[in-house]
Amino acid sequence: MGVSAVVRLGVRSATSEASVNSITLFVVLLCLCILIGHLLEKNRWMTESVTALLIGLCTGIVILLNTKGKSSHILVFNEDLFFIYLLPPIIFNAGFQVKKKRFFQNFMTITLLGAVGSLVSFVIISLGSMQLFKKLDIGFLEMGDYLALGAIFSATDSVCTLQVLDQDETPLLYSLVFGEGVVNDATSVALFNAIQKFDLSHINSTIAMEFSGSFLVLLFTSMVLGVAVGLLSAYIIKKLYLGRHSTDREVALMILMAYLSYMVAELFDLSGILTVFFCGLVMSHYTWHNVTESSRVTTKHAFATFSLVSEIFIFLYVGMDALDIEKWKFVKESPGTSVGVSSILLGLVLVGRAAFVFPLCFLSNLTRRSQADKIGFKQQVTVWWAGLMRGAVSVALAYNWFTMSGHTQQRGNAVMITSTITVVLFTNVVCGLLTKPLVRFLLPQQKQFDSIMMSSESEMSLAMPLLLANGEDSKSNMSSDNMPRPSSLRMFLTTPTRSVHYYWRKFDDSYMRPVFGGRGFVPYAPGSPNENMHQSLLGEQIIVE
Amino acid sequence: MGVSAVVRLGVRSATSEASVNSITLFVVLLCLCILIGHLLEKNRWMTESVTALLIGLCTGIVILLNTKGKSSHILVFNEDLFFIYLLPPIIFNAGFQVKKKRFFQNFMTITLLGAVGSLVSFVIISLGSMQLFKKLDIGFLEMGDYLALGAIFSATDSVCTLQVLDQDETPLLYSLVFGEGVVNDATSVALFNAIQKFDLSHINSTIAMEFSGSFLVLLFTSMVLGVAVGLLSAYIIKKLYLGRHSTDREVALMILMAYLSYMVAELFDLSGILTVFFCGLVMSHYTWHNVTESSRVTTKHAFATFSLVSEIFIFLYVGMDALDIEKWKFVKESPGTSVGVSSILLGLVLVGRAAFVFPLCFLSNLTRRSQADKIGFKQQVTVWWAGLMRGAVSVALAYNWFTMSGHTQQRGNAVMITSTITVVLFTNVVCGLLTKPLVRFLLPQQKQFDSIMMSSESEMSLAMPLLLANGEDSKSNMSSDNMPRPSSLRMFLTTPTRSVHYYWRKFDDSYMRPVFGGRGFVPYAPGSPNENMHQSLLGEQIIVE
Repeated sequence: MGVSAVVRLGVRSATSEASVNSITLFVVLLCLCILIGHLLEKNRWMTESVTALLIGLCTGIVILLNTKGKSSHILVFNEDLFFIYLLPPIIFNAGFQVKKKRFFQNFMTITLLGAVGSLVSFVIISLGSMQLFKKLDIGFLEMGDYLALGAIFSATDSVCTLQVLDQDETPLLYSLVFGEGVVNDATSVALFNAIQKFDLSHINSTIAMEFSGSFLVLLFTSMVLGVAVGLLSAYIIKKLYLGRHSTDREVALMILMAYLSYMVAELFDLSGILTVFFCGLVMSHYTWHNVTESSRVTTKHAFATFSLVSEIFIFLYVGMDALDIEKWKFVKESPGTSVGVSSILLGLVLVGRAAFVFPLCFLSNLTRRSQADKIGFKQQVTVWWAGLMRGAVSVALAYNWFTMSGHTQQRGNAVMITSTITVVLFTNVVCGLLTKPLVRFLLPQQKQFDSIMMSSESEMSLAMPLLLANGEDSKSNMSSDNMPRPSSLRMFLTTPTRSVHYYWRKFDDSYMRPVFGGRGFVPYAPGSPNENMHQSLLGEQIIVE
Repeated sequence: MGVSAVVRLGVRSATSEASVNSITLFVVLLCLCILIGHLLEKNRWMTESVTALLIGLCTGIVILLNTKGKSSHILVFNEDLFFIYLLPPIIFNAGFQVKKKRFFQNFMTITLLGAVGSLVSFVIISLGSMQLFKKLDIGFLEMGDYLALGAIFSATDSVCTLQVLDQDETPLLYSLVFGEGVVNDATSVALFNAIQKFDLSHINSTIAMEFSGSFLVLLFTSMVLGVAVGLLSAYIIKKLYLGRHSTDREVALMILMAYLSYMVAELFDLSGILTVFFCGLVMSHYTWHNVTESSRVTTKHAFATFSLVSEIFIFLYVGMDALDIEKWKFVKESPGTSVGVSSILLGLVLVGRAAFVFPLCFLSNLTRRSQADKIGFKQQVTVWWAGLMRGAVSVALAYNWFTMSGHTQQRGNAVMITSTITVVLFTNVVCGLLTKPLVRFLLPQQKQFDSIMMSSESEMSLAMPLLLANGEDSKSNMSSDNMPRPSSLRMFLTTPTRSVHYYWRKFDDSYMRPVFGGRGFVPYAPGSPNENMHQSLLGEQIIVE
């Protein structure tokens, strides 16, 4: 170890220079994407992710031309970078910013779509590729390879989904598609890990049962871990009241504990994605309300910023990496095969998603009483379409599987990786460009209707601070509980049902909040008069979502 | 490249697992340090850095015992990690949060102490070690090695300094010692780089002239680059007004451009430390005032948080790395030599610092007219003492020099590295523990006096928003210019002199602010009524430092 350190430090100037170069390039490109994203904000078609993908592709081409076709990418796609540094902030922020009420009101549907849906999609893509690939000459693929393909292409890109659907314009769809995406990602990664570990060459019912059992345990444990870390952070910050001395310690502790939840999950081979998502949910429900006002503003925007930068980085990265020459050499030899594989996979993704979205939405509608609350056909089409995108998770898993050192099937592997990239690029660009117009075409009333809902909600939130300021926070909360926030105006007018959510709120108010804080818990203001004034001026403004 | 990627990804599970382990450990330790730092906040002796150092040492010992003496550190000290990721946020935040008026009022003294001071210290330590090491049996050291030692031990640890002095309690000393520390770090690193590049085995006057010339050009170019990037960010954010659509883009752009300034400086072999420091100064003067209220709160606290976490990380790291077994083997063979080298270096550090602090403060006092404005002897002692600490910069430079692959003098190198670590640990623990009590012992009135100053200032800053709210921002600014803020009460009562600062303010108001924004520039509030209200409620609260 000492020797390796000596060697590594000796060549520092070379490696360091390379990393300085590529970091500078990436930072410049990130700035560019943010500026272009800002200028295109009102554009109907382009999203930030497509912009980043295209900028990444262009940069890849420029580098390719400059290095005379030697290497298109400055950074080789690095799974660690993706799974350890880029993904956690995105998923955490999603949990942190998600509208919790809506998420939990649709919890069953989301879980159905996410967990059962990815299993259906996994089975269809695995079996489909097994049947259809036989006719193509792509070398020998093992059983495990087909299963891996199923897992790889079952992972919806929840990041892209965030970009094309708007939480304010289509709140129900957003929470469905996005919530599904998170559970789906977790499911796919968990499936993938399970495939790597289990010997699946001869499946029988015992192994299948064992597999599903350990899978469910994994999902449950991951959730519990996320909730536990979130509650621990709330408890520590409430008890020690860090903001007394320094706002920065609170912010640092929140960031570190959020990250810790992910890393601990990874350490114990759980699903870090699911853990960090639930940690985000709990932190926004409890911890966030226990910190000082400045910390609230800071964490809210800092998490969103981390997430934004990570997203753009991922798309830049995928775009730049797409042009890696080595992989495309094999494609050149037999372009027909590659096109065939890509088309088959794309078709299977379309069919696989249709095969669970429509039946599961039908099932979910059976449990919904009022007509207005049901998920309409046009909405189902939107859910199906918006979840078609495959993204960085698929790329990362494909790299992981098809570049294993033990593998010798160089040609087949290269074809699989290029096909994955093709599918990712195609779904991102096509779905990315068409989803916004599609949503506006399919759900024009929805949008208007929701904007009315929104404005009435924002009026409520403007009225809330006054109530809260009078110290009646718990009462006003309770009264808004008794009338559960309507997911549609008609439902609100007919039957205000007592949902699971209602009982949860009662439990929360009686047992959880006294221990872990949460909305309504107001920490003492730190010493300085300045801070004091700031605090009282800003008041409870931001507490209300 | 393709092949290496295949190999690297193939062994992913092993490397990835190791990094997950060590990241988890570090995150846990960071949380621990933050909590302990919070609990020890009011403690007279301990600072966060000493805590982190001790926790790092303890963890090192625990790992050492667990791995049965094989390896004490989980992460080998990695210069890239330090110089590319950890140092920039600390120095940027220092520039961002420093009290600009006080910094510029003492600009000459700071530059004198920082640039000339480190040169004096460098010469003394180089010559001293050259003379004194002859008597010790530590193998053959070349001319370059002695010069490198001079540069390594001239780098004051500005991070530690931040911890022991309080900007509010002793503002003059803080700005002197800290400002000096930044210039000093930059000077040392620049010197070090120059030593690596120039052939210094036979120095003559031409080479010396060339050396100093390129050195001054380097300092100047670095500053200009930092200012340019800062102004560019201000201009972009003012022109495009990113906050219109999303606060997060503003925050992201500020973070990215700050980092960009550092990376570009490194790319062109300039002093990234100096560049990012000046970028921070400019950003807090212009850019910060051009963004929305939420972005202001977020950036202020997010930068401070990054800085805090990086600082703690560095100390943990140095602490854990200190117990690397390989290096101490040589020490075991001849403990006397090691103790001798460490003591000599420590003595030279003490003498080298004394040799420039007292004369330069004397020079600086000659230019100060009023008695109260002069730097008293007790204050000089504090400046001398507070800058004795050597930290991560020294360790990083020592690793860089004494573990070069070309070097064969294993034994001498090991002794140099262990001695560096010894000096760093000793100065940190001893100075870290004694500085707070020393400041209170030497400057008891100073503290009281400054706290009076502070309270009157904070009253002023509370009155300011009212003036600003009446739209008289430029007038009120001008009037406060005509009475330059006194650095002492007596000076204020005698002669309100027109300083460089006064002319700068006039220039700033007439030419810079119309283009780059800055205090008084109020961006339009983004669309939502919520945001609007928030903005108007919080008003200009935070604009005033």
